Amino acid sequence: MNTNILSVFTRVRQAARTFDAFDDTEHMLCHLAGLLEENAGAILAANRQDLERMNPADPKYDRLKLTEKRIADIAGDMRSVAVLPSPLGRVLEQTTRPNGLEIVKLSVPVGVIGVIYEARPNVTCDVFSLCVKSGNACILKGGSDACYSNKALVELIHQALAHCNMSRDMIALLPPGRESTLDLLNARGWVDMVIPRGGQGLIDFVCRNATVPVIETGAGIVHVYLDKTGDREKACAIINNAKTRRVSVCNALDCLIVHSSRLKELPSIIGVLADAQVLLHADERAFHALAGHYPADLLTPADESSFGTEFLDYKMAVKTVDDIREALEHIERYGSRHSEAIISEDEANIELFLSSVDAAAVYANASTAFTDGAQFGMGAEIGISTQKLHARGPMGLNELTSCKWIIRGTGQIRP
Amino acid sequence: MNTNILSVFTRVRQAARTFDAFDDTEHMLCHLAGLLEENAGAILAANRQDLERMNPADPKYDRLKLTEKRIADIAGDMRSVAVLPSPLGRVLEQTTRPNGLEIVKLSVPVGVIGVIYEARPNVTCDVFSLCVKSGNACILKGGSDACYSNKALVELIHQALAHCNMSRDMIALLPPGRESTLDLLNARGWVDMVIPRGGQGLIDFVCRNATVPVIETGAGIVHVYLDKTGDREKACAIINNAKTRRVSVCNALDCLIVHSSRLKELPSIIGVLADAQVLLHADERAFHALAGHYPADLLTPADESSFGTEFLDYKMAVKTVDDIREALEHIERYGSRHSEAIISEDEANIELFLSSVDAAAVYANASTAFTDGAQFGMGAEIGISTQKLHARGPMGLNELTSCKWIIRGTGQIRP
Repeated sequence: MNTNILSVFTRVRQAARTFDAFDDTEHMLCHLAGLLEENAGAILAANRQDLERMNPADPKYDRLKLTEKRIADIAGDMRSVAVLPSPLGRVLEQTTRPNGLEIVKLSVPVGVIGVIYEARPNVTCDVFSLCVKSGNACILKGGSDACYSNKALVELIHQALAHCNMSRDMIALLPPGRESTLDLLNARGWVDMVIPRGGQGLIDFVCRNATVPVIETGAGIVHVYLDKTGDREKACAIINNAKTRRVSVCNALDCLIVHSSRLKELPSIIGVLADAQVLLHADERAFHALAGHYPADLLTPADESSFGTEFLDYKMAVKTVDDIREALEHIERYGSRHSEAIISEDEANIELFLSSVDAAAVYANASTAFTDGAQFGMGAEIGISTQKLHARGPMGLNELTSCKWIIRGTGQIRP
Repeated sequence: MNTNILSVFTRVRQAARTFDAFDDTEHMLCHLAGLLEENAGAILAANRQDLERMNPADPKYDRLKLTEKRIADIAGDMRSVAVLPSPLGRVLEQTTRPNGLEIVKLSVPVGVIGVIYEARPNVTCDVFSLCVKSGNACILKGGSDACYSNKALVELIHQALAHCNMSRDMIALLPPGRESTLDLLNARGWVDMVIPRGGQGLIDFVCRNATVPVIETGAGIVHVYLDKTGDREKACAIINNAKTRRVSVCNALDCLIVHSSRLKELPSIIGVLADAQVLLHADERAFHALAGHYPADLLTPADESSFGTEFLDYKMAVKTVDDIREALEHIERYGSRHSEAIISEDEANIELFLSSVDAAAVYANASTAFTDGAQFGMGAEIGISTQKLHARGPMGLNELTSCKWIIRGTGQIRP
């Protein structure tokens, strides 16, 4: 690790250690939101420098691009986080032991949180507001595609921190390049957790190379199972919403599992997907049921690679099963433990599905598009955890805290 | 990964997936406790095979050795875990959203838990009872020193599982050798978390080599700070208890930090440590204060290596400070975030210490020997986490669970 990076890590650790999150964080974030709006011109100029280096046909182009409206949205989100209740100092457990020891488990900041992300400059601001609101310092490693935009944003964040007499080291932006990513992933003692936000490739790279704790987020291979008794209207609406509301998000539908008794109705239930030009990869029985009813250029036979794929596109696999057990096995085999849904009017099957499926969010008769911090009532989220430790599903402010046991005695010793 | 190990991982994953923890786990564990007692002779014979391969002077010998009494203790602990309330199915959060979605966050098993430990056969039984009670399967990698003992114990566990019509794959014992450790640490998709139980060397090896999530446990560099106003009697008792109750445990005292105004009394406050032959590594001022009062052969000048050392022995460093700030800085620099204590009658200093010190357990006027699951009222523990994610401090049954969001709707879609 070079001395520059080491000095960044040391300063951020020190800032985290001495930061008092109750001291005016709300005010600082609101001030920052104002600064973002006032300096929209400078932010957009920096953003243009990034955009000029990217091919507008690149799907990342739209995620990289900022506008006056997007800056206003970022500022608005920041004001919303600013006024959320603090997640710190919550009494998680409390007990007085027979020997008189008073034991309290309190929520405390995690410390220093590293976030590795791709070309989305809004993430820079989202991560900072959530981290600082929960008392954490953050070290950001943004995509090199967004480096001018990120620099401009972090400069304003530094201004806001300075304005409120807070340490500017509550946030640090690492230089582009894989070397600083590797330093961050191995900063044991300086960094308490790292959250990768991006595709499966990034997540795998992080898990393979990190010696600091990692929260895996994101990748979602999402199924909706239409059961024998599933309501036709609900099915139409849920499948269409889960697939086409936003295809680039992790909770978007990837594979419809259909009970064989529903094959006859399948064309009318999912016909609406053709309006959005959704390409179907259908297994043999579903293909047979759809052929002649669904546009031929949007219907293709499924092969093994159709299942277990996160499409992030106007594409969907269709799998036919003869009972719920087969559906559960398919999800167990191909799902990524993100969001899974059943459409059914059979209470026993609903309960079996909800209890058996091993995923962060399991739905009965609702769209998987709801897997989102704001939709769950958390206010905001830093990502969606698809692993089982520390946090699972949308990660809001509470999930950015750790805990500490505080024990008050009057001289007790252990026999 | 060789096909044998792969088939073990696959079978354990399958067992975890289909296990129903509410179905008779209490009965199975009580039956197993009985089996352990009935088969004490066979267990002791296997244990002798292990002991014969070890030098009795090895400090591990005593930890490896089983006796009738120790087997009865293991069975007793198992019965205690058996009757603890289940940590599963707890409603962690619950909300009905304005759109009518009913959202519940429930505690669920983690899945498959790997545990890597050294030559302590009792850990085999402790880990199994805690894991199975919380609905988890476990994969054990015990020290090769204990391989006959562990085999005998796991055989009885398999008998108990079979007796209750439960899958024997709820537990697997990996063959000795580093290769299977590495397989376990990289079993992404099969293993949900790994807990290393052992010294700092094992923990570092695991963190460097694991791609599955790890919970760091154990290593404790523990401080007690005797403040200007600390009560003399309490100080005597707490320091002696924290240091000498059991020197080989992670919550044992390693470094006494003493306020300079208390140096004159120091010989009388810690004189009792000489009875237990505690060797002191004292900084210059403390050495001067102790010289002539504490046995010369047990008093040595501290050097830099005296601080930040987990002694696990009848040894203790002594550091002199001029105020609480200096004590806090010393702990920040040398502590391992395990257990730290202040002895003081000054409320402001107590609160400053409790809020500033970043450790799993922070004490005022009590012995650090209390950092232990049973002492905190958790019933039992699988280890003491010194990291900040998922669990911090003693890990009981609740800390062996994950969660799942269950969402019940009536056809809701997201606008």
